Amino acid sequence: MAFAAPASLTERIAEHLGADIIAGRLAPEARIQELKVAGSLGVSRGSVREALLILERRHLVQLLPRRGAMVTRLEPAAIAECSELLTELQALFFGKLAQVQPLDPAPFENSLQAMATAVQAADIGACLAARRAFAAAGIAALDSYHLASVLEGMLPAGLRIAHLAAAHAESDPRDGLRFHQALLKSVTAGDVARIRELVVAFNGRECRLALGELAERARASG
Amino acid sequence: MAFAAPASLTERIAEHLGADIIAGRLAPEARIQELKVAGSLGVSRGSVREALLILERRHLVQLLPRRGAMVTRLEPAAIAECSELLTELQALFFGKLAQVQPLDPAPFENSLQAMATAVQAADIGACLAARRAFAAAGIAALDSYHLASVLEGMLPAGLRIAHLAAAHAESDPRDGLRFHQALLKSVTAGDVARIRELVVAFNGRECRLALGELAERARASG
Repeated sequence: MAFAAPASLTERIAEHLGADIIAGRLAPEARIQELKVAGSLGVSRGSVREALLILERRHLVQLLPRRGAMVTRLEPAAIAECSELLTELQALFFGKLAQVQPLDPAPFENSLQAMATAVQAADIGACLAARRAFAAAGIAALDSYHLASVLEGMLPAGLRIAHLAAAHAESDPRDGLRFHQALLKSVTAGDVARIRELVVAFNGRECRLALGELAERARASG
Repeated sequence: MAFAAPASLTERIAEHLGADIIAGRLAPEARIQELKVAGSLGVSRGSVREALLILERRHLVQLLPRRGAMVTRLEPAAIAECSELLTELQALFFGKLAQVQPLDPAPFENSLQAMATAVQAADIGACLAARRAFAAAGIAALDSYHLASVLEGMLPAGLRIAHLAAAHAESDPRDGLRFHQALLKSVTAGDVARIRELVVAFNGRECRLALGELAERARASG
């Protein structure tokens, strides 16, 4: 079947738009016009529609009947809710991963290496890419279709919060590195309680920074 | 939420195929051919592709690079994993719903009424439709974009398990009715611990019945 080539084009369009939303270049509540995107990327309108469905699954776009696509809101309540749900899913996911024996640490260590380099270069985009690679290593190692699919769907919204948090004056990119290092340690040690503690603490801190940054911006613009 | 709006063509195609998958008329691992579906429904291939993306989000279809779309597997491990994740999400969701004050019970009671009628008529399709209506009432009442979206994505896979469980000789359709009645009671009483107990027990029982039915069929066929 001819699904492959068009699907990978669709995925590339979704990645492109998704990166713009995560980094804030496409603002919350901005309308995304299929025809305009199709024209500027030189792709068909159908491919853009498919990419928007993928972005809806990633919680970055909402499709409104008869009104097209809108970048999802980024309000305090939505940030808190997203962070809380991600915490539950990550605790569940890495708790299960801790039971995989033996777990090959290499892909995780590679992503930590990339994260360390990105932190040194103060490159937030590369930091978040390394985070995605860490999660992808987990998804590849755990044979769990439903949880993996749900977690994959939530991660981009989590990265969007992380991007916002990283702009806060009190944020420290080394926190993310330390968290992922400690997380890998707890996963290989099979310490499920510690995994939950780490995930709760890190997501909580990142959520507070993102909310603080949002409040700063509201003050600055209002 | 886009609930009240008339369903788009894409959504209607997804509903049609989804119902066939949930009821087992489209078997696990069956290939879905875009052109064939487009021809038999008299719709465009693009609309079928979009419907398949929606079904992927609903965990009913997997899109395989270069090999098209396949109905997701229905194996013991996947059933157990799906049931466990749904349990966590429902406990979280209805726990939050229990904090909504005041909660209008009318839409929930309407779905329970429909469920009671369906149980009397031994109409499994109508039972599952009433279950969806109960969940939809919760989603409409709780202002929670991320959790609602994740739960909506998981529900069809849950209904597929419920459909399998309902075929088991020991299944009793009144169990589902009693569970939803008790759940509504606990939600309005704000009893979060009881909500979790109910969800764990009901999903656990349904999962065991589904696994039992699957084993029966495997024995019967080979």
